[in-house]
Amino acid sequence: MKRKRVVILGATGSIGESALKVARDIPGRMQIVGLAANSNAEKLAATANETRAPFVCLVNETKIDILRRTLEYKPRIFSGDAGLCEIASLTDADMVLVAIVGTGGLRPALTAIEAGKDLAVASKEILVMAGEIVMREARENGVRVLPVDSEHNAIFQCLEGKRSTLNAESFTLDVSDVRRIILTASGGPFRETPRKDFDSITPEQALKHPTWNMGSKITIDSATLFNKGLEMIEARWLFDVETKRVEVVIHPQSIVHSMVEFTDGSTLAQLSYSDMCFPIQYAVTWPDRVPNTLPPLDFSKLSKLEFFTPRYEDFPALNLARRAGETGGTLPAVMNAANEIAVAAFLDRQVRFPEIWHVVEEVMNRHTAIAHPNLDAILEADQWARNEAQGCVKLLSR
Amino acid sequence: MKRKRVVILGATGSIGESALKVARDIPGRMQIVGLAANSNAEKLAATANETRAPFVCLVNETKIDILRRTLEYKPRIFSGDAGLCEIASLTDADMVLVAIVGTGGLRPALTAIEAGKDLAVASKEILVMAGEIVMREARENGVRVLPVDSEHNAIFQCLEGKRSTLNAESFTLDVSDVRRIILTASGGPFRETPRKDFDSITPEQALKHPTWNMGSKITIDSATLFNKGLEMIEARWLFDVETKRVEVVIHPQSIVHSMVEFTDGSTLAQLSYSDMCFPIQYAVTWPDRVPNTLPPLDFSKLSKLEFFTPRYEDFPALNLARRAGETGGTLPAVMNAANEIAVAAFLDRQVRFPEIWHVVEEVMNRHTAIAHPNLDAILEADQWARNEAQGCVKLLSR
Repeated sequence: MKRKRVVILGATGSIGESALKVARDIPGRMQIVGLAANSNAEKLAATANETRAPFVCLVNETKIDILRRTLEYKPRIFSGDAGLCEIASLTDADMVLVAIVGTGGLRPALTAIEAGKDLAVASKEILVMAGEIVMREARENGVRVLPVDSEHNAIFQCLEGKRSTLNAESFTLDVSDVRRIILTASGGPFRETPRKDFDSITPEQALKHPTWNMGSKITIDSATLFNKGLEMIEARWLFDVETKRVEVVIHPQSIVHSMVEFTDGSTLAQLSYSDMCFPIQYAVTWPDRVPNTLPPLDFSKLSKLEFFTPRYEDFPALNLARRAGETGGTLPAVMNAANEIAVAAFLDRQVRFPEIWHVVEEVMNRHTAIAHPNLDAILEADQWARNEAQGCVKLLSR
Repeated sequence: MKRKRVVILGATGSIGESALKVARDIPGRMQIVGLAANSNAEKLAATANETRAPFVCLVNETKIDILRRTLEYKPRIFSGDAGLCEIASLTDADMVLVAIVGTGGLRPALTAIEAGKDLAVASKEILVMAGEIVMREARENGVRVLPVDSEHNAIFQCLEGKRSTLNAESFTLDVSDVRRIILTASGGPFRETPRKDFDSITPEQALKHPTWNMGSKITIDSATLFNKGLEMIEARWLFDVETKRVEVVIHPQSIVHSMVEFTDGSTLAQLSYSDMCFPIQYAVTWPDRVPNTLPPLDFSKLSKLEFFTPRYEDFPALNLARRAGETGGTLPAVMNAANEIAVAAFLDRQVRFPEIWHVVEEVMNRHTAIAHPNLDAILEADQWARNEAQGCVKLLSR
């Protein structure tokens, strides 16, 4: 029963906050040794003051003075992108939780892997953009990639039985018995909205998620179903299954977090309330389960769980993601980057809700995918897609 | 990938039929080497003729001539209770599936264990009456007890992750991470029937089960919830958890077959359509999963899954079973025996539906439980309870 020493990249975001809750709940099993944030110096300092983490990193160097002023103790302080990679490879850490929104988590994640740290992945971009590289590096460095997304964590739990065949060095799950991976999706706020009303959807409406409380980018992604599309690609890499074996089922109650259907026709599902503390804790304490103060399901109040087929025609994100996943190479990174730009443009009222899909599809259509790209090629494709998407936005917002 | 050589005790019953379907579906993994039935000689012969099982047993010796006449080949034939024990301990068998209704499966099950055969248990009586003895004998003989009840099979699947800590000899599951075992119950045909209408329930009404097609005894048990009560006690022995950690949730759709809640508040569930072929196959092929022709869940047609708290006051079977399970010793055998008599009396229109509970409770109240009984003491308590229950029935049917 080892206490895990964890570095949190993205400590001031919503995943970071949940990770702190977990650390408070199971102090005997989780110790925070490093905290990194992008630019919220005050919040980072407050979190550091509470946890007394010996290492702290603020990427935005212009705010480092605020951090120093607000700290009530003397941690070692890193800054900038280089600092992020330094705190991700601390000798004193066992695990790095990557919860940075956007592409910023990619380099520190790879640095952590090279330093032999287990990775708890909350940033979708890491596996969507560079799943092939990340999983290969993890294998070669004998490092574990533990999923923190509630969906992938659920799948990971349903595959617990495959642990016996795990090679501790390579951390390979045996998925030969898996027929389908079934990702559940809440369906977002427009699950039942007619297609004809999509044009008039406002950012305010799209930011009201029915079951999860998350950051704005991921909340819009839940509304467009791009979130689920990105997760299809993540699942492909995490569990080494082809994208065509990854399916999506709409489950508005967000109690079943995902399922695995085996070759014998039987299905295992993981259930809990919608609280990121569940998957974060499991990633930290795996393979153990540790008692905590989180409420278990109360079946007398649960009433009903519903399941529906997604409206593929009306929400094109799933088919775009399937295409990106099947093509592979640089296309998933391009899809992800174009989506980031389109979401920002929608929140900025430059494009309408359904135009998020149009922008992504247009940029994907323009891209010639490179197979088995290296990190530079991926980042280049990412930048290219951002420029292309900006061009599309400009055209649409006229 | 070894082909398992299986003996089926109770080959002409509904579980036996499903087992034959499984053997037809995965012939490379399951070979039927022995078939035993109580008295349906014609059906046993037909099944033998199809499977060409080299060993056949008919308990009812008066019908052995019909069997011989109808057989189209020359298997070795056993008969009587002694024959049942002989076929349960064949050198040529790896596993014995015990699917005999009532107490008749107990001695052959113990004989199979002593002969080192893995046990696939479908007969509830074996673990309800003699769970302590059966599990101890299994441990001492290095034999596996695999559950075939859909509920316990589901729990077994949810505990797959505990396999890594399995000692192949003792087959002990590590349940230290388990907080609760949650048995699902369809609720039977009277799930929503008001208590005041119970007196007028007819056998015909009680035999109409909403989701499962089973024998008449078990169908009545599903209506009274004694079936679930017996399963609570089975779970206690199979998974070595106290009865107080075994709970029941009503789930009318019979898609979630049972669940395990872990100490971290997370729950795993096993789902499939209601077909006994699923759990039978898993018991046979475990720890492998083998492709078959069974239909996986179609989530587009599943629609909704509901969960309710049982009506404990109106269906006293659950509380009686909890009491029997917590007291232990001979009390579960007494509850089981009294219930068998009461169900037969109800089907025979001698007692009314709610009087099944009254008879069982009355006999349980009269019993002084013996702790850690041996098999003779259990069978004696069983016989005593039958006599007492008959007395109650006589009184009520006047």
